[in-house]
Amino acid sequence: MSNWLINGTPGNVLPIDDRGLQYADGLFETIAVRKGKPRFLDRHFSRLRHGCGALDIVCPDLGVIEQEVRQVAEGCEFGAAKIIVTRGSGPRGYAPPSNPHPTRIVGIAAATPAPRSCYAEGIIARMCRTRVSAPAVAAGMKTLGRSEQVLARAEWQDPQIREGLMCNAEGQVIGGTMSNLFLVRDDALHTPQTTLCGIAGIMRQVVTEQAERAGIQSHRRQIDAAELAGADELFVTNTMIGLWPLRRLVDEQGAVIWARTIPARGTVTHMLKLRLAQLGVTECIG
Amino acid sequence: MSNWLINGTPGNVLPIDDRGLQYADGLFETIAVRKGKPRFLDRHFSRLRHGCGALDIVCPDLGVIEQEVRQVAEGCEFGAAKIIVTRGSGPRGYAPPSNPHPTRIVGIAAATPAPRSCYAEGIIARMCRTRVSAPAVAAGMKTLGRSEQVLARAEWQDPQIREGLMCNAEGQVIGGTMSNLFLVRDDALHTPQTTLCGIAGIMRQVVTEQAERAGIQSHRRQIDAAELAGADELFVTNTMIGLWPLRRLVDEQGAVIWARTIPARGTVTHMLKLRLAQLGVTECIG
Repeated sequence: MSNWLINGTPGNVLPIDDRGLQYADGLFETIAVRKGKPRFLDRHFSRLRHGCGALDIVCPDLGVIEQEVRQVAEGCEFGAAKIIVTRGSGPRGYAPPSNPHPTRIVGIAAATPAPRSCYAEGIIARMCRTRVSAPAVAAGMKTLGRSEQVLARAEWQDPQIREGLMCNAEGQVIGGTMSNLFLVRDDALHTPQTTLCGIAGIMRQVVTEQAERAGIQSHRRQIDAAELAGADELFVTNTMIGLWPLRRLVDEQGAVIWARTIPARGTVTHMLKLRLAQLGVTECIG
Repeated sequence: MSNWLINGTPGNVLPIDDRGLQYADGLFETIAVRKGKPRFLDRHFSRLRHGCGALDIVCPDLGVIEQEVRQVAEGCEFGAAKIIVTRGSGPRGYAPPSNPHPTRIVGIAAATPAPRSCYAEGIIARMCRTRVSAPAVAAGMKTLGRSEQVLARAEWQDPQIREGLMCNAEGQVIGGTMSNLFLVRDDALHTPQTTLCGIAGIMRQVVTEQAERAGIQSHRRQIDAAELAGADELFVTNTMIGLWPLRRLVDEQGAVIWARTIPARGTVTHMLKLRLAQLGVTECIG
């Protein structure tokens, strides 16, 4: 991204003493941009406001951020807008400044849509060695500290593997490095709870709502990694990809834990893809 | 701090796309500067090299960083130098860039020495509500993600309280927001282990070595918070403060958990302060 607005001013640098860099003292949102428009902006704003509350950062005016997101999104056919909110600059030390001036950063990056096969045939995912720590300081929220996801993503280079799943220290699966995980079993939907760690994804929220509207039971709960082998269907979601079914899950050594051939239709996953497409997540059905 | 060197060039801004800001993908060191000289630089370098290894970041040339630290430290009577190393700029996404160019940032801030009373009479500390999460991605190392410490430090405003102690989810004490904790009991030294979370502090290392040289047994282990009430002596250490004895520990509501009058001499704490002073940590004895 080179096209940034920092507190409304075009630029591409930030003061070194910003607490976003010094202490990861802030939050971010990644927003899908399609044909120049941001998608699910209200939901992202709701989470951002919530996250600012959890970190006790005064949330910048969301009307202003909305204008800025729309401004940077203009003309972007397919991409990702990013909002970063930090507690702003401050003196040395963890104590938040008594008179903070939060920094808001808004940017855009063009992106390449994922291949059709990710949606139609499903992806290969692997289990990661890197653990998700708990309890997270603002569980469910997108705080800036993402070293765990970075190290988990660095565990593999094989471009065939599109996502890695991460567990907590107790062996419960928390989600993907960049996505939320769903498991279908006996026509019910299960997704790891985010009460102690993990991200409460926007697409996860949308998928859960759509499942409920379709009369499908939906459970947010602790899910042991061992349960994955017994899933009828597995899929991952995030704001940029929409929904990717899994066709294979492998362990750290590459041994297959779970595999399915994705049928063209008739699955819960397929039904949810159709519903997402109706809400504008058209990449799901191509 | 306004006096920064970024990859050797004076400046005070960083590219927004630096992964230090985007993902807290980096490490830092805070180094005490006294009379223009950095203290325990080799030990800080050793931890920095170790941390870079844990995050798989190519550690910048430490000879160059040493020159830069000495350069910014010059003329600083009493202060803190800070080194930040990040994985550098990169495209969107957690995956580390295939050809990374780590960023090195070196800066200096003048500081005010803590009041004599902190050393001679001891400090008041409190227990924090905010938990330290585990397992940390690079336990013991100083990764940039410090939201937990920020939120813990934000729990109190009373300037009489100089430090807050943090526990993990299981109620084991991990350390202070900015310090390591030591407990003396039956003339032996105990400090929380940093195998799953917490910081392996430089002053903690020095204190542990000095205790061993003085023939005092030293244990790095799990310490239940409940054990604190039974301590003979408590103290905290960090690179900038040296060593502060505790004279009182209070809970979140201010109720006293532990209290002692600090004798002028005759304690393990006092003996360690004298030894630190001999190593150049003269603030400990004034």
